[in-house]
Amino acid sequence: MDEGGAAPPGQTASGHADTGRLEAFSDGVFAVAITLLVFGIATPDVGQGHLSRKLLDQWPSYATYVVSFLTIGIIWVNHHGTFARIARVDRPLLFINLLLLMAVSFIPFPTSLLGKYIVQGGDNAKAAAVVYAGTMTAMSLGFTGVWAYAVTRGLLHTERIDRQRARSTVPRFGVGLIIYGVSIGLALVNPTLDLALFALLALFYVFDQQAA
Amino acid sequence: MDEGGAAPPGQTASGHADTGRLEAFSDGVFAVAITLLVFGIATPDVGQGHLSRKLLDQWPSYATYVVSFLTIGIIWVNHHGTFARIARVDRPLLFINLLLLMAVSFIPFPTSLLGKYIVQGGDNAKAAAVVYAGTMTAMSLGFTGVWAYAVTRGLLHTERIDRQRARSTVPRFGVGLIIYGVSIGLALVNPTLDLALFALLALFYVFDQQAA
Amino acid sequence: MDEGGAAPPGQTASGHADTGRLEAFSDGVFAVAITLLVFGIATPDVGQGHLSRKLLDQWPSYATYVVSFLTIGIIWVNHHGTFARIARVDRPLLFINLLLLMAVSFIPFPTSLLGKYIVQGGDNAKAAAVVYAGTMTAMSLGFTGVWAYAVTRGLLHTERIDRQRARSTVPRFGVGLIIYGVSIGLALVNPTLDLALFALLALFYVFDQQAA
Amino acid sequence: MDEGGAAPPGQTASGHADTGRLEAFSDGVFAVAITLLVFGIATPDVGQGHLSRKLLDQWPSYATYVVSFLTIGIIWVNHHGTFARIARVDRPLLFINLLLLMAVSFIPFPTSLLGKYIVQGGDNAKAAAVVYAGTMTAMSLGFTGVWAYAVTRGLLHTERIDRQRARSTVPRFGVGLIIYGVSIGLALVNPTLDLALFALLALFYVFDQQAA
Repeated sequence: MDEGGAAPPGQTASGHADTGRLEAFSDGVFAVAITLLVFGIATPDVGQGHLSRKLLDQWPSYATYVVSFLTIGIIWVNHHGTFARIARVDRPLLFINLLLLMAVSFIPFPTSLLGKYIVQGGDNAKAAAVVYAGTMTAMSLGFTGVWAYAVTRGLLHTERIDRQRARSTVPRFGVGLIIYGVSIGLALVNPTLDLALFALLALFYVFDQQAA
Repeated sequence: MDEGGAAPPGQTASGHADTGRLEAFSDGVFAVAITLLVFGIATPDVGQGHLSRKLLDQWPSYATYVVSFLTIGIIWVNHHGTFARIARVDRPLLFINLLLLMAVSFIPFPTSLLGKYIVQGGDNAKAAAVVYAGTMTAMSLGFTGVWAYAVTRGLLHTERIDRQRARSTVPRFGVGLIIYGVSIGLALVNPTLDLALFALLALFYVFDQQAA
Repeated sequence: MDEGGAAPPGQTASGHADTGRLEAFSDGVFAVAITLLVFGIATPDVGQGHLSRKLLDQWPSYATYVVSFLTIGIIWVNHHGTFARIARVDRPLLFINLLLLMAVSFIPFPTSLLGKYIVQGGDNAKAAAVVYAGTMTAMSLGFTGVWAYAVTRGLLHTERIDRQRARSTVPRFGVGLIIYGVSIGLALVNPTLDLALFALLALFYVFDQQAA
Repeated sequence: MDEGGAAPPGQTASGHADTGRLEAFSDGVFAVAITLLVFGIATPDVGQGHLSRKLLDQWPSYATYVVSFLTIGIIWVNHHGTFARIARVDRPLLFINLLLLMAVSFIPFPTSLLGKYIVQGGDNAKAAAVVYAGTMTAMSLGFTGVWAYAVTRGLLHTERIDRQRARSTVPRFGVGLIIYGVSIGLALVNPTLDLALFALLALFYVFDQQAA
């Protein structure tokens, strides 16, 4: 592109795009991923057997549905809050955000897996919980990466947001990240407790970790 | 965030966000959920048998498809109308709306379930109808919660909408809610009649319940 | 709503909403439906058998995929063009548009059905083709309904579009509608020819029927 | 339409629409297609067998997931960049873009196919790799078509972008296209190496090919 001329619309002269279309695309991925979670719940085929019992038996599918739904929902809310503070998007940020979206899009798989194997107990429940915890940790890593990159590269609304205070929030993201990492270990000990931890984490993130 | 400075774009100084991105995300979830309903209709595998007969036999799948489609569609239309009256979104409202979206996203599951079991009759049809009615009631509850919260917290366009009149619409939402609750009881008596009730409710909500 | 006060944003004083959010929601449904079509193509399970032969054998799934994709795509393009001419949306128009979207969302089902049964020939191929043709006709009906309603109720950009000329386009929509209706009869005679007709219709609609 | 009057909103007097709704629709298709990829990964049914081993055994499904995700993501980013340079959309461009979206929407099928057959080796792995490479080539072709058409028809922001320089970028697109074409041949020789090539191509396209 001829840098001697003006930038195309939605881009600054320095090649930075505004956040509009990135947010719209991310919202689309969040909305589709969160709505696809329901396919992790099988429509039971009981013939003339007891449907009500079968429906109760598959409670873990509902539990993982709710936890994954709230987790994606909260990540969406915080993604919203994060990009309200980001003024410009450069190419690396687009790709870090893409890695975050890859983890989010993957969530229906471990959700279905954990819903299916958590009641079986033993090694299979642990394997499913490790995949679940690993996916959540990857998502947390992606989210922390987006924020850390934006803060350190000065992509925030500098006229409005104090950079020092913004920087000070990065370690706090790290705390969430450490807890997610711990969840991988817990998956090997007690998969059900691990799912409860993710439910608690979702509630924890209801409070905006970026607010100083 | 440094409250001494100005708010980030899309937020008021008091930390309230505008409704734009919440509406876009909600629209995404509504659009995906409503389009996924079709997967509750199985592509029959009849081999050399009679496809036409099989297609006619699975009429309940089409009936539940239509009722669920219209219900989500109408909830979308009313969601649209509701947020046209809401000026600001705070964090609790984001989460109440998320609970509404969780119920909406869940609808493909009971829709598929009821389409499969309603003709079998007996306890299995009743179990399926209870799940269907319960999901619809949860959605109604979430919707009433969004409106009641916005009205009582004064998040409406106050310069334009009379708060007293807005408050007076909350009980009317309650009427719909009671009918949805009754539908759970009816599910245990006559699942087919229950589905007809949901069809009628959808038609009822074609008329805007928020208009005073 | 207190009509003595001003209208909420996105609505005119007479209670008409602008077309923005309806277009966004419709775009969402079109985008999801068109992207879900691919699930009508089964990932074959041939074990150690010949995958390449199996892939060639399921050519009808690709053919119905392409025809349905182009049809939804063209309907989207024309929906786009239609709402560029519509200035205001009232409640009935929202619901007529919802019926159009219901037909569009249903398309993945007959697409999968026809892809599966068209090569079998006989009554099953005809049954599948009737469902396909019927769905397309319903979509055409919904689309004609949206345009006819908007024209007759004067919801167009009157300052820019000549109403008489707009009215004169309604019968032309009818021509498409008749052809779609004829396709139902053709389905009972020659399902493969019927699919070819839909491919031709898609090409026909590449040309804007609303342009006078 | 009466060309004597003004154009409808979102259209110029010469009948060209702006890029807004095309971008929104394309973003929707990209977002849905990228999020649907996860359904190519089967939730294993191992009963009391070893889930962890089975999860490791299906590594090709994860590999194809990652490569397809990054490829769609990068195409989205470049689509974004391309339409930031395009000022107007005419009807042919809408349809060329639709062909691009058809290839993108198709990707979940070859992704699932290659993930399933690549480890089997032999002719089936080659067949799956050919379908995968062919789909990617079709997508590349569609993308090149969008850009070449827009450049040659002068639909760019001419006041800002030097047309000569823009034209000079078309051959560079061609390079990517040739590599994609080569990938079809490589599919017949070594499917695993072919997948590695697509991973490299995704990384290559991280760098903006339109920037002069």
